[in-house]
Amino acid sequence: MFPNLNNAMKRGVVFAGRDLKIIAKAIHEKTPFYALTGIMPTSEQIHLGTKTVVENLKYFQDNGAETYILVADLEAAAARGVSLDESRKRALNFYIPAYIALGLDPKKTRFYFQSENTSVIKTAFEASRQITFNEIRAIYGNTEPGRIMSAVTQIGDMLYPQLKHRKPGIIPVGIDQDPHIRLARDYINKNRSKRFSTLSSIYYKYTPSLDGSIKMSKSAASASISLPEDTESVLKKIKRAKTGGRNTEAEQRTLGGQPEICLVFELDKQHLMDDKELDDIYKKCKSGKRLCGECKGICCNKMTEFMNDFNRKFHEAKKDITKIDFIKE
Amino acid sequence: MFPNLNNAMKRGVVFAGRDLKIIAKAIHEKTPFYALTGIMPTSEQIHLGTKTVVENLKYFQDNGAETYILVADLEAAAARGVSLDESRKRALNFYIPAYIALGLDPKKTRFYFQSENTSVIKTAFEASRQITFNEIRAIYGNTEPGRIMSAVTQIGDMLYPQLKHRKPGIIPVGIDQDPHIRLARDYINKNRSKRFSTLSSIYYKYTPSLDGSIKMSKSAASASISLPEDTESVLKKIKRAKTGGRNTEAEQRTLGGQPEICLVFELDKQHLMDDKELDDIYKKCKSGKRLCGECKGICCNKMTEFMNDFNRKFHEAKKDITKIDFIKE
Repeated sequence: MFPNLNNAMKRGVVFAGRDLKIIAKAIHEKTPFYALTGIMPTSEQIHLGTKTVVENLKYFQDNGAETYILVADLEAAAARGVSLDESRKRALNFYIPAYIALGLDPKKTRFYFQSENTSVIKTAFEASRQITFNEIRAIYGNTEPGRIMSAVTQIGDMLYPQLKHRKPGIIPVGIDQDPHIRLARDYINKNRSKRFSTLSSIYYKYTPSLDGSIKMSKSAASASISLPEDTESVLKKIKRAKTGGRNTEAEQRTLGGQPEICLVFELDKQHLMDDKELDDIYKKCKSGKRLCGECKGICCNKMTEFMNDFNRKFHEAKKDITKIDFIKE
Repeated sequence: MFPNLNNAMKRGVVFAGRDLKIIAKAIHEKTPFYALTGIMPTSEQIHLGTKTVVENLKYFQDNGAETYILVADLEAAAARGVSLDESRKRALNFYIPAYIALGLDPKKTRFYFQSENTSVIKTAFEASRQITFNEIRAIYGNTEPGRIMSAVTQIGDMLYPQLKHRKPGIIPVGIDQDPHIRLARDYINKNRSKRFSTLSSIYYKYTPSLDGSIKMSKSAASASISLPEDTESVLKKIKRAKTGGRNTEAEQRTLGGQPEICLVFELDKQHLMDDKELDDIYKKCKSGKRLCGECKGICCNKMTEFMNDFNRKFHEAKKDITKIDFIKE
């Protein structure tokens, strides 16, 4: 349906979506649409999984989408107690440079802080009139005021690019973010005037942590790869990673390895290798030609390249951060 | 405690308050404090009771308060479904001119729209983090998102004048608005850093409708005096008003009238007469010297003067509305 799929799409890292035909049509017909994602500046670190967010956003950017990145500073204040100043600092010194280092083109991206975009806020307050308490409770369970303010503000964000001209939009998210998409889509449907085009979404898998737990995160730091992180430390983690290796070398030479359950292979697949490299790794593993140690070495080399590249681009982007012109309205 | 009390204060129309000593001290010592009220632009009419709001705001303005009037356009959108454009039109064409016609000095007043004041919004989102769902439910019963957004935004408004410099503030309100004051005061107390000075408040009685129901309102239109309203129509309502008159003339001449339960006297007391006039009316009524018809005539004359004065000032203020410089930040 989509042209020139990116690796995440080809390899099943992107595994689901809503109303994708609308976006495919806009790409093919070169009509206006947008892609949007938000940064929640709750710490000074992201993990490798963020690479998937940026890749998918960049995919739509490269295929003609107006691209928006917002800093969810109001939400960070309401739902996490992060001060607005702290959010601003983190966004400028860390998150935005990291997103650019991961491949986003800042010249083609529109950035804003929620707290500086009164159009977003107005839309959020208007929407709150049509969102019921029962919807919030059913979707989030949590009905604390800070959570409600956040949820409604996200609607403001997701619809912001349509305020001047109605157009399709796509939000690439982790599956845990689907409730926000549903809330926004429900709100759009309540507006019988057809003020807004419905929202599309794609969902991507988490990057699992290297011990096999479901996602890389701060709480699984010893098996998660952070950005930035010292390359030595990353390589150590890869060397300790859970693989699909057999109990003995003899067994592995005979039966072959199990890339399907190997976290090093998952890393190769989600983030590091091109199609040819990945195919080669898969075959050599399945056939028993290559053992886990060697395979980890290949992964480590690629990861070192990636980390060096990331670090270089990150520092460049940081120097250029003042060139970014944030939307204020 | 306060110097030079206004009529509403002297006559028990203002009947309660919180932490008034703090404000009295600021007045006496000429240290900075503020008074603030909000306009909720839900219609194109106010009723006479609004005169009390303005008088009390003006009292503090005349006694040295920084004075703020905000247009609650975000709240009107969230809680009442009034569009932001409609709120703006109503505020400019009607509410603000009416407040000026009722005595407010626009040169000494700072005006803003909630939707244009990101400092207010930031404060509201920060506050939402520390307000619990249970507090909202206990105070308002209603826990719809629009109501929660409104409640939290009011905290942003009430604390806005303190963002740059902590200082005492007073909010003159009808007693039904006390929950908002309590929510804001509770929030202030949660901030152990003493970022904000606590809020003071005064409470005024409603202007009863002329048939004796508890307050003038749109739902009791036939006995309520609107601003603006055709003077003929107002006078008719006064002539139909419930008084403290006796069943027969003879009885009234002997026993005297009952100004305590007379709605014309209440109108005289709350809005129309100076001390000497009011004293004269009271005595002539109690002694049976004057009957209700004559007394209504006196009230009608004063009301005609008031309405003419209001209309003239209202149209002047409307012409000058473009001179008002709304805070945007």
